[in-house]
Amino acid sequence: MVPRYSRPAMTAIWSAENRYLIWWQIEIFAAEAMGEVGMIPAEDAATIRKAYDADALGEIDVPAIDAIEAVTKHDVIAFLTWAGEKLGPERRWLHQGMTSSDVLDTAQAVQLKQAADILIADLDALLAVLRRRAQEHKLTPTIGRSHGIHAEPVTFGLKLAQAYAEFDRNKARLQAARDEIATCAISGAVGTFANIDPRIEEHVAKELGLTPEPASTQVIPRDRHAMFFAVLGVIASSIERLAVEIRHLQRTEVLEAEEYFSPGQKGSSAMPHKRNPVLTENLTGLARMVRSAVTPAMENVALWHERDISHSSVERFIGPDATITLDFALARLTQVVDKLLVYPERMQKNLDRMGGLVHSQRVLLALTQAGLSREDAYAVVQRNAMKVWESDGALSLLDLLKADPEVTKHIAPAALEESFDLGYHLKHVDTIFARVFGDAAG
Amino acid sequence: MVPRYSRPAMTAIWSAENRYLIWWQIEIFAAEAMGEVGMIPAEDAATIRKAYDADALGEIDVPAIDAIEAVTKHDVIAFLTWAGEKLGPERRWLHQGMTSSDVLDTAQAVQLKQAADILIADLDALLAVLRRRAQEHKLTPTIGRSHGIHAEPVTFGLKLAQAYAEFDRNKARLQAARDEIATCAISGAVGTFANIDPRIEEHVAKELGLTPEPASTQVIPRDRHAMFFAVLGVIASSIERLAVEIRHLQRTEVLEAEEYFSPGQKGSSAMPHKRNPVLTENLTGLARMVRSAVTPAMENVALWHERDISHSSVERFIGPDATITLDFALARLTQVVDKLLVYPERMQKNLDRMGGLVHSQRVLLALTQAGLSREDAYAVVQRNAMKVWESDGALSLLDLLKADPEVTKHIAPAALEESFDLGYHLKHVDTIFARVFGDAAG
Amino acid sequence: MVPRYSRPAMTAIWSAENRYLIWWQIEIFAAEAMGEVGMIPAEDAATIRKAYDADALGEIDVPAIDAIEAVTKHDVIAFLTWAGEKLGPERRWLHQGMTSSDVLDTAQAVQLKQAADILIADLDALLAVLRRRAQEHKLTPTIGRSHGIHAEPVTFGLKLAQAYAEFDRNKARLQAARDEIATCAISGAVGTFANIDPRIEEHVAKELGLTPEPASTQVIPRDRHAMFFAVLGVIASSIERLAVEIRHLQRTEVLEAEEYFSPGQKGSSAMPHKRNPVLTENLTGLARMVRSAVTPAMENVALWHERDISHSSVERFIGPDATITLDFALARLTQVVDKLLVYPERMQKNLDRMGGLVHSQRVLLALTQAGLSREDAYAVVQRNAMKVWESDGALSLLDLLKADPEVTKHIAPAALEESFDLGYHLKHVDTIFARVFGDAAG
Amino acid sequence: MVPRYSRPAMTAIWSAENRYLIWWQIEIFAAEAMGEVGMIPAEDAATIRKAYDADALGEIDVPAIDAIEAVTKHDVIAFLTWAGEKLGPERRWLHQGMTSSDVLDTAQAVQLKQAADILIADLDALLAVLRRRAQEHKLTPTIGRSHGIHAEPVTFGLKLAQAYAEFDRNKARLQAARDEIATCAISGAVGTFANIDPRIEEHVAKELGLTPEPASTQVIPRDRHAMFFAVLGVIASSIERLAVEIRHLQRTEVLEAEEYFSPGQKGSSAMPHKRNPVLTENLTGLARMVRSAVTPAMENVALWHERDISHSSVERFIGPDATITLDFALARLTQVVDKLLVYPERMQKNLDRMGGLVHSQRVLLALTQAGLSREDAYAVVQRNAMKVWESDGALSLLDLLKADPEVTKHIAPAALEESFDLGYHLKHVDTIFARVFGDAAG
Repeated sequence: MVPRYSRPAMTAIWSAENRYLIWWQIEIFAAEAMGEVGMIPAEDAATIRKAYDADALGEIDVPAIDAIEAVTKHDVIAFLTWAGEKLGPERRWLHQGMTSSDVLDTAQAVQLKQAADILIADLDALLAVLRRRAQEHKLTPTIGRSHGIHAEPVTFGLKLAQAYAEFDRNKARLQAARDEIATCAISGAVGTFANIDPRIEEHVAKELGLTPEPASTQVIPRDRHAMFFAVLGVIASSIERLAVEIRHLQRTEVLEAEEYFSPGQKGSSAMPHKRNPVLTENLTGLARMVRSAVTPAMENVALWHERDISHSSVERFIGPDATITLDFALARLTQVVDKLLVYPERMQKNLDRMGGLVHSQRVLLALTQAGLSREDAYAVVQRNAMKVWESDGALSLLDLLKADPEVTKHIAPAALEESFDLGYHLKHVDTIFARVFGDAAG
Repeated sequence: MVPRYSRPAMTAIWSAENRYLIWWQIEIFAAEAMGEVGMIPAEDAATIRKAYDADALGEIDVPAIDAIEAVTKHDVIAFLTWAGEKLGPERRWLHQGMTSSDVLDTAQAVQLKQAADILIADLDALLAVLRRRAQEHKLTPTIGRSHGIHAEPVTFGLKLAQAYAEFDRNKARLQAARDEIATCAISGAVGTFANIDPRIEEHVAKELGLTPEPASTQVIPRDRHAMFFAVLGVIASSIERLAVEIRHLQRTEVLEAEEYFSPGQKGSSAMPHKRNPVLTENLTGLARMVRSAVTPAMENVALWHERDISHSSVERFIGPDATITLDFALARLTQVVDKLLVYPERMQKNLDRMGGLVHSQRVLLALTQAGLSREDAYAVVQRNAMKVWESDGALSLLDLLKADPEVTKHIAPAALEESFDLGYHLKHVDTIFARVFGDAAG
Repeated sequence: MVPRYSRPAMTAIWSAENRYLIWWQIEIFAAEAMGEVGMIPAEDAATIRKAYDADALGEIDVPAIDAIEAVTKHDVIAFLTWAGEKLGPERRWLHQGMTSSDVLDTAQAVQLKQAADILIADLDALLAVLRRRAQEHKLTPTIGRSHGIHAEPVTFGLKLAQAYAEFDRNKARLQAARDEIATCAISGAVGTFANIDPRIEEHVAKELGLTPEPASTQVIPRDRHAMFFAVLGVIASSIERLAVEIRHLQRTEVLEAEEYFSPGQKGSSAMPHKRNPVLTENLTGLARMVRSAVTPAMENVALWHERDISHSSVERFIGPDATITLDFALARLTQVVDKLLVYPERMQKNLDRMGGLVHSQRVLLALTQAGLSREDAYAVVQRNAMKVWESDGALSLLDLLKADPEVTKHIAPAALEESFDLGYHLKHVDTIFARVFGDAAG
Repeated sequence: MVPRYSRPAMTAIWSAENRYLIWWQIEIFAAEAMGEVGMIPAEDAATIRKAYDADALGEIDVPAIDAIEAVTKHDVIAFLTWAGEKLGPERRWLHQGMTSSDVLDTAQAVQLKQAADILIADLDALLAVLRRRAQEHKLTPTIGRSHGIHAEPVTFGLKLAQAYAEFDRNKARLQAARDEIATCAISGAVGTFANIDPRIEEHVAKELGLTPEPASTQVIPRDRHAMFFAVLGVIASSIERLAVEIRHLQRTEVLEAEEYFSPGQKGSSAMPHKRNPVLTENLTGLARMVRSAVTPAMENVALWHERDISHSSVERFIGPDATITLDFALARLTQVVDKLLVYPERMQKNLDRMGGLVHSQRVLLALTQAGLSREDAYAVVQRNAMKVWESDGALSLLDLLKADPEVTKHIAPAALEESFDLGYHLKHVDTIFARVFGDAAG
């Protein structure tokens, strides 16, 4: 985790305080269930539960727990020792028949679920600004580019609608991954429930909003985690896509949009044009980092037999790093889109810079519909188009065509002008918006 | 694609013949829809459709198409030229207003969906053998190991039930990924439907069992593909897990299970013990390869503007390679599990090799329940356990405990024997099986 | 391997014929050495060697060998059976005391060395065209861009010199990786030379241009291969860098360079500007694929004990795929650079499009040197620069400054013009070229 | 960076204090050189240098610098402002004609070189213990295993010698990578030295022990960093290999070696056998993390034009994370090898557990040398070997062969015993040790 790429709420999920709090909840809810099934005296179970409801732990004293761990060399035991002091003799029932991984893995499931909830909220915020800006620029014409080369007109709103659709898919993926990761295992040393009744697991799961893991070993199987981080990697890749789009639009020669600059803000030098798309460049790098968690998460799946602990060090990195970084990146992207400076005049200027060549295919179709063979139509359009091209946009294709008798023999000048109508390209924007945002979205 | 790691049905999906056949279907269904919406004459559309129903193309002549492509340098045009010869003058309506990517991307979606269907069938086959072998060995005791070290008893069936649950999750993931990838884009050069009515797309999608892409650019957005290959990577990781388990079980010192060897089959030398788990080792390597497709698939997402073609070369590799290899790997794993030689006696022997130490925790609990403090109980068990440990399993913990008055003071020998009962560890196997296979599974 | 991204010489290295030929050489050279050290009769060794010198095998009959393998299920034995038929009774000495991996791993080392030699030749060819084009455009001014935004002038030759320096580093890396991979192991079943004298290994190594592996297990250690593929991944990343540079330069709005188009060649439509940088886009994708070999190659290192065979399937993919694809990519990049259309006028036009703003920092320095405080100098430059910026390049910064008495009070117009001299930025190009190409390079 | 996987010296390299100190050195040495070449007054340059020699900065006040950065939003300017206060008016010459990246990239080069030096020292320490333990167990026999299955005898020292050779290669790779990364760029905004003489760069490079970057853009080219992190990834993979070897040896059924346990140390339960190889499992996970830096480092290479800043966020993670984690992992591995508990008796017991089957190939050779055909020899050995195999090691192959007249007809019992001599397998251990450690190593 790099502090400058982190936000407090997500970081707090990975704090020692939050981890210990969840451990406490797991132990409490487990004890409560043990009382219900008769593993421990019902009154002791009630006392334990009351301690929780009364917030008996108070503030988690991390240094105190650390001090105990320095002696016991065992984190769960250290916590239990510290927490036990807040209880009376009923403390001895805590953690009965459980194994450390029951606590560690279930707690991590809660943390990943909490993290997913923040990320889903992040996506909702991003979707909201994408929707707003898409509708704002629904009919703002701009050149569509394939291979970086001018192709045919689109609208700027369409670009954002495509991004909306992509992040909406990402939200659905993350919701599924969250549900997959949110399982609870309280099943003992090798997952057999030898010393603990399965009803304990069911109760803890219910209290924590988790699902019981159908078949754990000593641990929750790591294919769940691999899937979770893979989804984060896909989302990061989508962030990169939109970030790269904005970086392209901000290039000096294109300049159709810019990351927000406050009015008084200075660029990095005397050059007023030196406004760098540093936020989206930063997002491009952050996307690489989130993605880099995917392979180790997949390598974690093949644990030996009922578990080895090789996954643990990996998860100490990627658990916080990938979620904190993605949270930061989504929020930064949302801010960038929200405040993005959009320059419709420049978009129009770029659209026009080829002297109307972007309409040549439309003219071609019109000529063939007017009876010319495709070959003849191509030749006549190509002849005029080349002149425009060689003039570097100084000449206008429409003017040249109007002056070409081979053309006007087949199409009247007024009809020709129709072929240069941007509306032709925008007529189905409504359809696409309805698909993306629903019918009321237009 | 490496021929020795491929199977015919999956390989056929990626053949030129299949690709061209899907292109043909796309063009035909598009033309049919154009007839319906009045873009082209209805009778020509009908003629075109009839050509399809009558199998007018016959066998796809790949060399002939290749020869045309050598001249035109364009694969879609080459195909259309060849296919057009099978039609009359109505051929000129084919591909009207469409762009090459409409055909290429939609065809790839069909191929990936076909591939997913085979992989789902592969998973079904694997799940069936896992279920059968799990039930066969539901109560076959074996030692559970954490960190490679003996822990407490489990059953071999439980191991297989855990694998079943994992691959069942993988099936659900793949079904979701298949549905995500199965979209159709017939939306023209920059996705605006400028020259083609959206109803064409809807019709083609319906005929091919796809969903219309809500907002395409020139191409179908690549986050869908990234997700698809990520799921293949997770499945590969699960394959690795089970393969590594079997490799461990076949180690000379463990030898609880072996890949099938036919009775007359020779090992690689004069040594009859030299039966190598080469299939599962091979699966371990194949898993690495399938996983290696995930990162390039994610790098493909950030295409420039309305598309660049950098994704194309990547997909020419990973489309066939990842699906063909995974299909092969799933089938091989199914065969390995199906015929796996399981040695319950050896499992029991390994269980017993620690002289009953695996039951020491159970004794400890019994002593504390009988009134000893945890510390005293620990000391007395530990004292006897160390003797067993130092004897390398020659002594029996049960015998020593029975002869220890500190123990028998609290627990009668008969009660002690209960603590060494394997049934204690297996009492919830039914519960787990019911969770994994449903209630009728036991 | 994808045929369209392969070239014959590199592909031939990975043919069955080449592999069998190397196997033959290994067996022959080993037998020869066995004769020398007295492991087998000297005259039989001589007969075997003569068979090699006389090309006794003739053309490798792959189908015949395949047919034998279908029975023996063992590739090395199949080859030995087929090859043995070309010898007399001395055939029984072939492969004495050797293990299959001695042949397989040493042969693969030869193949990777052969592949590296081709790739080094590819790099030499690329370096030659980079040098030529760099010198051609040594002083062709063009705008330097950071963050995609105009910064200060550079030359197009400098860009190519930077690429030259980068690929020169890559050549040195590949030479080191080639030497690392070129080792020979003829050390028997577990690397102890139990049944084969180490002098056999030394002789085979010498004949094949390899180094004896100091300490093999059953196999050559895979850290060597991991390093080899990591270097290929770095080279691929450098290819991506230059490819992305060219793609940027070919963007419609920039258009300072273009991939070669033959005079009569048509773009993809009626639009004459539609010349797409498809070769460099393709290279971007191929770079992703070569890079994807790095992780599995690293995962291959941790083989179990004296070997497991999980690396083998991985290498059947990445051995051919990564080298063939990189060979193709280097050749394609060489061709792209060789024939790259460079447009110095357009570079100048882009340089000028900001109305001279790229010189503002130089003016700032001149004003401070003339006595103004940095703050005052900044204010006066910024004031004029903003006007130029708002005019979208229609106004000239030099003109405005000349007309600003606050400026001319400190710097005479003639001196001002010097600040707009491109030569100021290019004065150290010689230095850089001398560093990159050596002193004679200018 | 995860605190529990970090050590102070490496962590200190990445501290703000160290970074600022290096920045200070760069600025000082640059100013000094500017004085020499006449860019700034010589006496001011001398004053600046004296401030450095007199340690004018004293302790770096990070919070003070942070406070300035909170206002200026620019880290280099914040530092210069703070540091400038320690100087007189000559402070204005600091950073003349330089760009931020000159400082940032050169400083990072120093940090990576410092990190490499620690890692090389780590490798030296690891090599020293590997050498010592290898010599200690040079002739300790143990079974060699391929595919996890017993093959033929090796020695435990050989395993360590192989590891030594591998880490010795890694040291050479890291030395090369360190030299590659240790370059200095003081070349201005786009690498042209427009506002700064190349001699400044040369001087700073010399003072910092770096090499001048032959051709920088605004930044040092990132292929150097990609190579650096790739080498770290290879080293991590070698760590994983040795860690996995030890984990295997510690398995309950194998137990030929164990991570050190202090005499009084308790296992995790009442079971005295429960000594888990948690350090090497941890190393397995850490290896995955170090390796995960490779792909983002390679993705960083293709920066746009003269630079974009996408690499920066990536390097803020992987610079510290990969070096700190690898340092920790190497030190942990050194400690594990240093104190590894090795059990030669258990190794011998495992060697013997197959009843002498590991010698069957040697007998086979002896019989063929005694005149039997290979087929007959195989049959007679196989017949006896199968009996041993079926007895699960209770019978002895040597005993059976001695009692088999088909065998004794050809080989006398005394000669047979020679075939079971371990020395046969160990006769070339000296050769291998001499190759690995040099002739004096035996």
